[in-house]
Amino acid sequence: MAGSTFGNRFKIMTWGESHGEGLGVVIDGCPAGLELCEEDIQVMLNRRKPGQSKFTTPRKEDDEVKIMSGIFEGKTTGTPISMMVLNKTQRSGDYSEIAGYYRPGHADYTFDEKYGFRDYRGGGRSSGRETIGRVAAGAVAMKLLNKLGITVNAYAKEIGGIAIDYDRFDMKAAKENAFSMPDSEAAAKVEAYAAEQMKQGDSMGGIIECVIENVMTGIGEPVFDKLDANLAKAVMSIGAVKGFEIGSGFEAAKAVGSKNNDSFIMKDGKIAKETNNAGGVLGGMIDGSSIVFRAAVKPTPSISAVQNTVNKKGEEIEVSIKGRHDPMIVPRAVVVVEAMAALTLIDLIFENMTAKLDNICEFYNR
Amino acid sequence: MAGSTFGNRFKIMTWGESHGEGLGVVIDGCPAGLELCEEDIQVMLNRRKPGQSKFTTPRKEDDEVKIMSGIFEGKTTGTPISMMVLNKTQRSGDYSEIAGYYRPGHADYTFDEKYGFRDYRGGGRSSGRETIGRVAAGAVAMKLLNKLGITVNAYAKEIGGIAIDYDRFDMKAAKENAFSMPDSEAAAKVEAYAAEQMKQGDSMGGIIECVIENVMTGIGEPVFDKLDANLAKAVMSIGAVKGFEIGSGFEAAKAVGSKNNDSFIMKDGKIAKETNNAGGVLGGMIDGSSIVFRAAVKPTPSISAVQNTVNKKGEEIEVSIKGRHDPMIVPRAVVVVEAMAALTLIDLIFENMTAKLDNICEFYNR
Amino acid sequence: MAGSTFGNRFKIMTWGESHGEGLGVVIDGCPAGLELCEEDIQVMLNRRKPGQSKFTTPRKEDDEVKIMSGIFEGKTTGTPISMMVLNKTQRSGDYSEIAGYYRPGHADYTFDEKYGFRDYRGGGRSSGRETIGRVAAGAVAMKLLNKLGITVNAYAKEIGGIAIDYDRFDMKAAKENAFSMPDSEAAAKVEAYAAEQMKQGDSMGGIIECVIENVMTGIGEPVFDKLDANLAKAVMSIGAVKGFEIGSGFEAAKAVGSKNNDSFIMKDGKIAKETNNAGGVLGGMIDGSSIVFRAAVKPTPSISAVQNTVNKKGEEIEVSIKGRHDPMIVPRAVVVVEAMAALTLIDLIFENMTAKLDNICEFYNR
Amino acid sequence: MAGSTFGNRFKIMTWGESHGEGLGVVIDGCPAGLELCEEDIQVMLNRRKPGQSKFTTPRKEDDEVKIMSGIFEGKTTGTPISMMVLNKTQRSGDYSEIAGYYRPGHADYTFDEKYGFRDYRGGGRSSGRETIGRVAAGAVAMKLLNKLGITVNAYAKEIGGIAIDYDRFDMKAAKENAFSMPDSEAAAKVEAYAAEQMKQGDSMGGIIECVIENVMTGIGEPVFDKLDANLAKAVMSIGAVKGFEIGSGFEAAKAVGSKNNDSFIMKDGKIAKETNNAGGVLGGMIDGSSIVFRAAVKPTPSISAVQNTVNKKGEEIEVSIKGRHDPMIVPRAVVVVEAMAALTLIDLIFENMTAKLDNICEFYNR
Repeated sequence: MAGSTFGNRFKIMTWGESHGEGLGVVIDGCPAGLELCEEDIQVMLNRRKPGQSKFTTPRKEDDEVKIMSGIFEGKTTGTPISMMVLNKTQRSGDYSEIAGYYRPGHADYTFDEKYGFRDYRGGGRSSGRETIGRVAAGAVAMKLLNKLGITVNAYAKEIGGIAIDYDRFDMKAAKENAFSMPDSEAAAKVEAYAAEQMKQGDSMGGIIECVIENVMTGIGEPVFDKLDANLAKAVMSIGAVKGFEIGSGFEAAKAVGSKNNDSFIMKDGKIAKETNNAGGVLGGMIDGSSIVFRAAVKPTPSISAVQNTVNKKGEEIEVSIKGRHDPMIVPRAVVVVEAMAALTLIDLIFENMTAKLDNICEFYNR
Repeated sequence: MAGSTFGNRFKIMTWGESHGEGLGVVIDGCPAGLELCEEDIQVMLNRRKPGQSKFTTPRKEDDEVKIMSGIFEGKTTGTPISMMVLNKTQRSGDYSEIAGYYRPGHADYTFDEKYGFRDYRGGGRSSGRETIGRVAAGAVAMKLLNKLGITVNAYAKEIGGIAIDYDRFDMKAAKENAFSMPDSEAAAKVEAYAAEQMKQGDSMGGIIECVIENVMTGIGEPVFDKLDANLAKAVMSIGAVKGFEIGSGFEAAKAVGSKNNDSFIMKDGKIAKETNNAGGVLGGMIDGSSIVFRAAVKPTPSISAVQNTVNKKGEEIEVSIKGRHDPMIVPRAVVVVEAMAALTLIDLIFENMTAKLDNICEFYNR
Repeated sequence: MAGSTFGNRFKIMTWGESHGEGLGVVIDGCPAGLELCEEDIQVMLNRRKPGQSKFTTPRKEDDEVKIMSGIFEGKTTGTPISMMVLNKTQRSGDYSEIAGYYRPGHADYTFDEKYGFRDYRGGGRSSGRETIGRVAAGAVAMKLLNKLGITVNAYAKEIGGIAIDYDRFDMKAAKENAFSMPDSEAAAKVEAYAAEQMKQGDSMGGIIECVIENVMTGIGEPVFDKLDANLAKAVMSIGAVKGFEIGSGFEAAKAVGSKNNDSFIMKDGKIAKETNNAGGVLGGMIDGSSIVFRAAVKPTPSISAVQNTVNKKGEEIEVSIKGRHDPMIVPRAVVVVEAMAALTLIDLIFENMTAKLDNICEFYNR
Repeated sequence: MAGSTFGNRFKIMTWGESHGEGLGVVIDGCPAGLELCEEDIQVMLNRRKPGQSKFTTPRKEDDEVKIMSGIFEGKTTGTPISMMVLNKTQRSGDYSEIAGYYRPGHADYTFDEKYGFRDYRGGGRSSGRETIGRVAAGAVAMKLLNKLGITVNAYAKEIGGIAIDYDRFDMKAAKENAFSMPDSEAAAKVEAYAAEQMKQGDSMGGIIECVIENVMTGIGEPVFDKLDANLAKAVMSIGAVKGFEIGSGFEAAKAVGSKNNDSFIMKDGKIAKETNNAGGVLGGMIDGSSIVFRAAVKPTPSISAVQNTVNKKGEEIEVSIKGRHDPMIVPRAVVVVEAMAALTLIDLIFENMTAKLDNICEFYNR
């Protein structure tokens, strides 16, 4: 595996460069019988599309998805689903300058070191456009999850150090403001702060939080394929993510056991937990509470402010990254986090189907 | 894959329960020609052994490893290396009580939900003893890394909210004090705090930091198998770990781009980075700086203080966990973090060997 | 894995249906630095193209390949290579009749049983067009093998019971006659026999033989991933292949050990084998002799002669398969066998690069 | 993967050398709730045990299996099942001579070429004892299959060119005679022929046939993971197997389509096939008929008759293999073929559980 393959049971392979012919993904392992059309994918892809507000890049990318296989008469057939977005508006000329030097915070240098050269146009394979394949596949996974009654919702918990107040938590707001923030007051503060940073040619980071609800208990495998371990990999694999935590996360490191343990209680005749410091996972398996995890996103590395770097000749130089870049990654990354969570979850749900002999016998003897 | 398999190229499968016959691991993919003996494994296993100070469980577990295959005349043969530790001193009687209820913070409930029943003796498969297989395999990976000049060092950065001071950083101290803390003053404070918590039958969490040095640039795969993504999975799969961050991690979320970006500079005629907020990884590939990551470890869930929970009959009850438990997990988990880091790294190093056609031709045409 | 993924290190995922938008493949794991263009792929794809003689289907399929990603300035970049062929001349109308019944010898019935329904147009996913993805990926693998000096040549050893005579063996003939037969006399006999069968609306089977030369000794993994085991899977996965043998194959079953064993001898100062009953593989690893294997190919199941079958209503009916079908599969399958052999081989070559610690140290310390 | 790992869902890793500490296997992916004890494994292991007649090696190998993990109160827990057989009666002295030369038909030379050296004692990893891990894991897979009503039966179809007559087919005979031959008359002929060959210090090959019954239709994945492709790999990975065919196999190559196609018919109100040239598989998926496949087994390469070979110094020498060797491999390999078939089948059954969305919804919404 060379890194563009994800999942064991609902397996995907993504492909494409920022300025190549296009980008896409193939899914091997989607069950037959799911109603699926291009609009299902497009809706989710549109949420990562740039140019939606002045706080994201003004580049225009239409990103129209086309399903190439795996659907017949409106339903998945069980065979591979190939989807792609053709690159239409990419102008290679914009990027020719960066061929010669290494942008700080980018993968230019490491690509050259690993492969001997790189497709430098728009970041090539390490461009944010790489997430198109993730989101397209994630949209299919999400539709499957929804069929099972599961919901996955991510949003900006914090941008530029300005955090939401849970007393004002409102997912409707997240859908309306430019920052995917479920708190209009916080969003207003971010707007002012962002305007300030943009004037200085700078960028800012933030924290994305994701809540998954209504998942069957027991999903997730003990030992290495714990749900939280697989989620961590999935989310940390998104460019710009530098940290992951579940439940009380890094706060747990400062807590004592009597506070951090969640007591089991009976609720409506069922076993539940009084608190959810665990974030919905015990021993790597879903415990019935909501799954709650967070991703730390670094500031956009492409900034117009002057920076020091070196060029391929080994000379120290000063650069100011030209081009149309997002001042923050968080708003457009929210849907990528949802996609990666959905892909992780569906894979482990499929894995779980053979956990008990009873399930297999039932399936087999219908 | 049902969760006890890790790695694609240096692949391991671990097995064993706390109170079964024993625990072990098989490695499929270790190259031939590595000098290896049981002592190499034992040294690393001894670092996770309990009973080393009054701040770890007083249980005595000898944990003597035996190599069952894959070695001939003192060297690995390229065939699977099977290693095991027989369970000798486990007393099943100690644990019979917990069969009937669900310990807060433990996987008892989720195991029952997933599999229909569980081996409740000492936590069964979700016991801390599960890490024996990880550490044994990690010791082999570590020896390979050392052959390549790579070092992996983890230590306690913080316990119970008491953090080390980098001005006093001293790895020698970490090897001497009971907490693996590279700062004797901080260790002394932890000692006092821990004594206090233990009196109250409580436990505490902490943060483990790990530094990897001298790794070739370019290791790690773009997109899904980024070095940081794979490390995150590896480390989050250790029981009790609730968060992972690399480089500036969650701090990056509050930073601006001009501060968080690491400028490239020339140093001794080579490309280097002025700072290391990236933690040694750009675009998922090693950039030549040290790899620095951290894991948040929750407090030991087994505490003697009274807690509320439910039993299998669905009754709410009060429990006080008996037995000999660690008041903190961090000191014994340090070596487990190193093991998982080593396993992750060797796998990606092997993966990287086919990144360039030139490498393959060179290998082939010798 | 749901069956359209192949390879562990040079991994491919194929997609597409006979009458969908197109067919293609993504390769994850091709090393950087290989010169590659569409013509390299097209040459091999053209060998499986129909309509090349009156003994293959007169359907016209242009099958022009387009490379969508993974190439920059004429070389592979190490990132996924996506290739596709758009379906242009497929007429769905031709096939509407077969929606209602199960063609003997085809996968119509099993697809319905497995997935609940099927894309019946032209066989859907189980059409011979499925091999487009195999051949496109195989062309890339073949170019890599050629760089290493390895050659892979398949040809028809037997068609309709008429076998080649090795005394007349001539690979030039194989490239010229309609049957890929390296013996013009045998080809002439097949031509007469085939004309006879076609008049009766019948079809015929045959045997494809493949010879691989100049492969490094030691390639192939002991136990489960023996070279011959992996080749068997690769070749048996081609539709219509019903048998696989290596070296003396089924003849070995009748032999005695003193005759079947190949004596080792010294030849030009090197260890060699006097005979090659082993087919170039000992214990699953390449022994330095040519690799020689054979695949048994069944007659084309689509025949115009009247056959008995059942329809979806459960009625027994008589059918005569309309449409433009190949009277024999062998000539067009020859290149598919080469492709699958190349894919298998490159994967195991990559795998072998970490067999010895010395190799890894050499690579690492350059 | 370095070759000792098999299966994707019911995954096994085998280990051990002929003269090391022991041999074993770990299963990751066995569902919870299967009653399992050592006797279940032992029964199947005993069928591969040597010394059962004068036509197998007189070596005494007790091969007592011990289950080390994954069982609690007599049932599988869903966690890895580790099983092992300690080597007790192996005498390394017997084999010291072969350290210096390469036995014809064995993997001595290829091991040296691949790894630089080898554990030469008794063939090391490439000994027939390697199959202990396969059979132990296969016994667990077989018990699962039996729970689902599936039977797997292999037997000798032909030894030394002497084939069974299906008119006298009698599985009871196969269990009684020394050759696992379901035809007493044929077995008597083999006995005479074998006695003759043994006098001359020679060995003989044969064909094993395997019949699998009562498997659900639709099992097997289209394209690369066809049931027959995966069976071919599984069976060809057994040492000494040189050919594989399913259904009419190599005979299909000589047939015409009108004869080789199996007509669908209605039988007891269900769709069935009039004949079974397909061997129970259409398009890689089970069609409801019995699965019938055959493996060609070469003569035992270890013979006492004088052979030519070379030694490690590159000198041509004459050797006569000492030691206690089987004059034929077939009788003891029958159970290995069954084991590999069971492992292949259970893996694809598990895979099939997510083929349809309906199945997943049903499972999820119970």
